[in-house]
Amino acid sequence: MPGLLLRDCRPWRTDGLTDLLVRDGVVARIGSGIDAGDAEVVELGGRLVLPGLVEAHCHLDKTLYGGPWRPHSAGPALADRITDERLRRAELGLPDPARVSALLETMAAAGTTHVRTHTDVYAGTGLTGVEVVRDAAARLAGRITVEQVAFPQSGILTNPGTAALLEEAIKLGVHAVGGIDPAGMDRDPVRHLDVVFGLAERHGVRIDLHLHDPGSLGVFELELIIERTRAAGLAGRVTVSHAYALGQADAATQDRLAAGLADAGITITTAAVFDFPVPPVKKLRAAGVNVACGHDDIRDLWSPYGSGDLLDRAMHLAYRSTFRRDEDIELALEAVSYGGARALGLDGYGLTEGARADLVVVDAETPAHAVVTRPPRDLVVKAGHVVARTGALSRPPGR
Amino acid sequence: MPGLLLRDCRPWRTDGLTDLLVRDGVVARIGSGIDAGDAEVVELGGRLVLPGLVEAHCHLDKTLYGGPWRPHSAGPALADRITDERLRRAELGLPDPARVSALLETMAAAGTTHVRTHTDVYAGTGLTGVEVVRDAAARLAGRITVEQVAFPQSGILTNPGTAALLEEAIKLGVHAVGGIDPAGMDRDPVRHLDVVFGLAERHGVRIDLHLHDPGSLGVFELELIIERTRAAGLAGRVTVSHAYALGQADAATQDRLAAGLADAGITITTAAVFDFPVPPVKKLRAAGVNVACGHDDIRDLWSPYGSGDLLDRAMHLAYRSTFRRDEDIELALEAVSYGGARALGLDGYGLTEGARADLVVVDAETPAHAVVTRPPRDLVVKAGHVVARTGALSRPPGR
Repeated sequence: MPGLLLRDCRPWRTDGLTDLLVRDGVVARIGSGIDAGDAEVVELGGRLVLPGLVEAHCHLDKTLYGGPWRPHSAGPALADRITDERLRRAELGLPDPARVSALLETMAAAGTTHVRTHTDVYAGTGLTGVEVVRDAAARLAGRITVEQVAFPQSGILTNPGTAALLEEAIKLGVHAVGGIDPAGMDRDPVRHLDVVFGLAERHGVRIDLHLHDPGSLGVFELELIIERTRAAGLAGRVTVSHAYALGQADAATQDRLAAGLADAGITITTAAVFDFPVPPVKKLRAAGVNVACGHDDIRDLWSPYGSGDLLDRAMHLAYRSTFRRDEDIELALEAVSYGGARALGLDGYGLTEGARADLVVVDAETPAHAVVTRPPRDLVVKAGHVVARTGALSRPPGR
Repeated sequence: MPGLLLRDCRPWRTDGLTDLLVRDGVVARIGSGIDAGDAEVVELGGRLVLPGLVEAHCHLDKTLYGGPWRPHSAGPALADRITDERLRRAELGLPDPARVSALLETMAAAGTTHVRTHTDVYAGTGLTGVEVVRDAAARLAGRITVEQVAFPQSGILTNPGTAALLEEAIKLGVHAVGGIDPAGMDRDPVRHLDVVFGLAERHGVRIDLHLHDPGSLGVFELELIIERTRAAGLAGRVTVSHAYALGQADAATQDRLAAGLADAGITITTAAVFDFPVPPVKKLRAAGVNVACGHDDIRDLWSPYGSGDLLDRAMHLAYRSTFRRDEDIELALEAVSYGGARALGLDGYGLTEGARADLVVVDAETPAHAVVTRPPRDLVVKAGHVVARTGALSRPPGR
């Protein structure tokens, strides 16, 4: 295919104006005055180029995105939401392939090139969600890549049969096994982690655990996960999502956990939703802990909010982190890009020569400016193909 | 002037589809099948009509809105931001009439019909800010109404000469006198309140105090303000902005303060910014306390964030309040409309026959849906005049 020459652009973390040549799906060259040859030339007039955004935590299988407004129907407690969802899933036809596709299209048009989604796996739903998400992802292939986590929303030990279903999901090709509140929900943190880490080790998949448990209970579970990750030699392959306890802990405990997480090679993924505690992003990054970010629920029975736009999510993360300075706000942007890429284990990610050509162009003076104003996406490219121009999806490649 | 007939619309808090006739600056009639007469007919196809939005707390005089991106330059402490602002105001030409006008235009196009802004009044700036804001407001007259609070950003007792300047500002026509952390900043809560309440009583202006002081100190100051408001008989004329201590307090203290605030007729205005504590909106409303909302800083030396769109601000308030249900999310919408109108003492506000015709039309299924998705403003009307259509300002009335 012919290449694409981005003329007069400013790639994030490259100084000054430059050209960027995309050819054969990769960033072939970055430099001034590149000869376009047969490549399509796009004049960018100094626009900012970001790497393709990486959604590190969402729940595509639950979404009602693009459908009629559904007022939130659950009571205030967590148990209310779990019960409400079980009751209303069938009534609303969830998981709904049309809704999943609609959300993925919005994400792709907004510059997201990779998604990690937690798909419910439990006795009530079996593997329907995994199949629906897989099929929707196939329809969007080439425009957005979707990786699934088999997610035991209702627990593993407390929901008999779930461990076997998680294993079946892995055989269907999910890239990670999930977990949820090993103590607070599943009532036996060590055995819960036995199952999750056991599956990961046997099948070579990654791990991404939901940890909402607060305070010292959550801190204890983080310690268990750190010890277990070290012992299993799974550095770079384990993520803890939410980790509210990390945001609640005192400074000394945060320091100790940050050192442990960095040493074990564990990613912390936050969504910065509602008023829930946000992990100390700046401290974690300074300690060398990878931090990723995602939406969590988007317009579903758990939350009526969410846009699918990762610059919007980065704004929420920066805002809740009270980041005012450009270099701090960029930490939030890093979480929805490089941080997510590290969590998902993406090879060849970034804006350097030889990297896969996944990129987003926006009209912003600095990366922080892009987070604050969330400008339209002028151009989205994935693996060298134009996915969207001025916010509208292009035809899929090869069709 | 000819009237305006909104055909097939859904005014908030009115059941079902109806017509709404605007004539002579007021809502002349609400009902089905109204005869348009010579009025312009606007077919709304079931769109939602909200009352004109009321920005209850911002700082127009500080804004850099619409200018080039200015990376935040202050250090992390409050004192750093105060020093940074003093140093950079002159360099950046603040207050800047063009920036104030640009922000007011954005606000008006987004459906804000009334603004309360806190204008710095202290030895360093004198009354320049009051005059700049007054002049910008005059240029936008008929499209957006601006009320100023004379705001002692650097304290009153600790910044000699400020009390006299506040009095001069009142003589220039500001509608309220401000205060700031009577204990934490001004070091003498009783004498600070003596000055503020003294000015308000002598000149018949309203009061709007910034209260960031945390914990039991902030609670004590709220008690002082409640006692003082009751003693002075100023029910309905006093606002406490931010009131972080109210968000931090235990439930019993919140209950006690809510009862006191309701009895004294004090408004709580929140901006729900960054990670700062948000007052318990639902509890306050249940106790009968008026709650208003505003942006606080918008793209200035204090904060690089802020859009000027009050639906966006309502989203932040609902989100930080963990409001999921429609009726809860509507409390945030109420804060940027009816709550603000009560704080400012606006007469004839609302969507009832005889009310002043200040209204905004959006394409949303429910009021909560409007807060979550923040759709474009299809039509903005102020005092019967069309201010904006599809987000673009109309020509000013009479020109």
